[in-house]
Amino acid sequence: MKTNLAEQALQGQRRAIARLITHVENEHPQIHGLLDDLYPHTGRAHLVGVTGSPGTGKSSLVNKLAKAYRNQDKSVAIIAVDPTSPFSGGAILGDRIRMRELSGDDGIFIRSMASRGSLGGLARAVDDTIKVLDAAGFEMIFIETVGAGQSEVEIAKTAHTVIVVEAPGLGDDVQAIKAGILEIADIFVVNKADRPGAERAVAVLKTMLELGHAPTHHIFHHGQLMTVEGDSASASPSNGSGQDENSWEIPVLKAMALKGEGIEPVVTAIDQHLDYLKESGELVYRNRTRLIDELENTLQSELINQLLHQLPDNYLSDIISKLVERRLSPYSAARTILEEFSQ
Amino acid sequence: MKTNLAEQALQGQRRAIARLITHVENEHPQIHGLLDDLYPHTGRAHLVGVTGSPGTGKSSLVNKLAKAYRNQDKSVAIIAVDPTSPFSGGAILGDRIRMRELSGDDGIFIRSMASRGSLGGLARAVDDTIKVLDAAGFEMIFIETVGAGQSEVEIAKTAHTVIVVEAPGLGDDVQAIKAGILEIADIFVVNKADRPGAERAVAVLKTMLELGHAPTHHIFHHGQLMTVEGDSASASPSNGSGQDENSWEIPVLKAMALKGEGIEPVVTAIDQHLDYLKESGELVYRNRTRLIDELENTLQSELINQLLHQLPDNYLSDIISKLVERRLSPYSAARTILEEFSQ
Repeated sequence: MKTNLAEQALQGQRRAIARLITHVENEHPQIHGLLDDLYPHTGRAHLVGVTGSPGTGKSSLVNKLAKAYRNQDKSVAIIAVDPTSPFSGGAILGDRIRMRELSGDDGIFIRSMASRGSLGGLARAVDDTIKVLDAAGFEMIFIETVGAGQSEVEIAKTAHTVIVVEAPGLGDDVQAIKAGILEIADIFVVNKADRPGAERAVAVLKTMLELGHAPTHHIFHHGQLMTVEGDSASASPSNGSGQDENSWEIPVLKAMALKGEGIEPVVTAIDQHLDYLKESGELVYRNRTRLIDELENTLQSELINQLLHQLPDNYLSDIISKLVERRLSPYSAARTILEEFSQ
Repeated sequence: MKTNLAEQALQGQRRAIARLITHVENEHPQIHGLLDDLYPHTGRAHLVGVTGSPGTGKSSLVNKLAKAYRNQDKSVAIIAVDPTSPFSGGAILGDRIRMRELSGDDGIFIRSMASRGSLGGLARAVDDTIKVLDAAGFEMIFIETVGAGQSEVEIAKTAHTVIVVEAPGLGDDVQAIKAGILEIADIFVVNKADRPGAERAVAVLKTMLELGHAPTHHIFHHGQLMTVEGDSASASPSNGSGQDENSWEIPVLKAMALKGEGIEPVVTAIDQHLDYLKESGELVYRNRTRLIDELENTLQSELINQLLHQLPDNYLSDIISKLVERRLSPYSAARTILEEFSQ
């Protein structure tokens, strides 16, 4: 059965793909073996992250982009991630509308994922879902995330191309356009561009991009493995290259996704960004960074699992009582546990 | 010097407090010893998280709440967290305005924190900064976070009382009010209530709260330690109590923070929520959950540090090459490393 499910997914069988993703979500005992079978077939899809505040019309834009790629005969998968629903574990609002709009096409696969209790758990599930869809042969994988926060940083770590969607009138404060978002975006889309304020939103974004925010390369990883590995390996290949042919000018595009207007320029920008990533060597760098990140996360969770299985009964509850009574700090508690149970 | 800085902070000396927080941010080698000295004096402050999308006027609201508590002669600290600025490491927009409004009062302490590269790093720095301010005797600690994403979940883990700030006209879509936010909020404030749409925003929030979202208890932790510890310990004390005196009716309040209107009802709600937490036993539960969470995070980062120091030169770069060439999956790589270098 094990090889079958992976083999079926590799052949693009939808039910096998869906079951594998469910296995990922449920941390099925066989999932790691299955993912290992799929792994050699990954690394081919173009991963496009789409993020923006609620109300910007991200989902409509993704739907229209999916249709545009279908017209080019490319297969498309959509992962709709909602880290703000850590409790429900259920599907996402607006999901049914999406299904109705895109269903009945075997070249499209849609999956919603809510948080699995922790950000780490969700990120792992998304990474593994991408592996399944990538191995199954989907050429474009859209990862759509709600966010004006950490989720955007996470998406930047995962995707090759990050689209940040804005809409006029959504918080005209200075705050609304944060430096962090500028540095995550590869493409800006001002959606709902028929609303008042669209031109101003475009102008503000362009000005902010010009002001000292030269085309930027994503150097977001400061984890432990990157440090150990040494500076030369962690430096971006085109870092410091400034405005030469290897740099990327972040476009600011207008769209009215609901009406289907302004979609083609976004498609063109996505494709051009992939070309840029390939030519500049940034694609290799980003893929490498992702994998190192994933290795580090896996090591961390496996290590703590190992440790916890060594602890005698009641040991942890004693420690926790001391924490609560303020007789032991969390850091000292961790040190104590490590000294006693780790070599 | 070590005892001095902690002792000075315990006496409420501002320069010592500021230096300790800088030590926290820079991961100063002595910081854990200093925090251990402070730890027995923590656990007294009321931790109030304030979150909401950009443009809702969170900062103005926090400033006015701070002033209101100062009028009651309570000391106030504000930690302004910006997880969307992982790159700059700099101060937050609007910070200077805040400083001007609140400066010159020794009973107020303000600190901005940007991301330290990873969400884990930021969460740790915020937790430790809270310890410093708590031990230094600040009675009210406001933790203000930008977010419509994971940062809200993080803040819910840290704070006793979570205020979610909305504003009329910021995304009137269904999406704008997410189930996750409903479950995180202890108090809703519709700010900028003189704008059109304020009544509707209040009505929508109230309806959503009524629809199946009974007053809720935060059971957000699904980490490993909680699981090991057993079900009885991880269950919320008042879980399942429904609408009895031990439940909390989430209020939806209107305010115009810039004009200073509607502030007192928010203060009253914050104080009533603390009373509720104490009477229901939820306060003990939340504090316990926080500490377990912190222990787990510390263990994870220490474990991986230990492991990495055991690896021979080039070992990791070999593994990473295999990952990139798709000859080894991240999970298999982690298993290999653990089998060779962990007991």
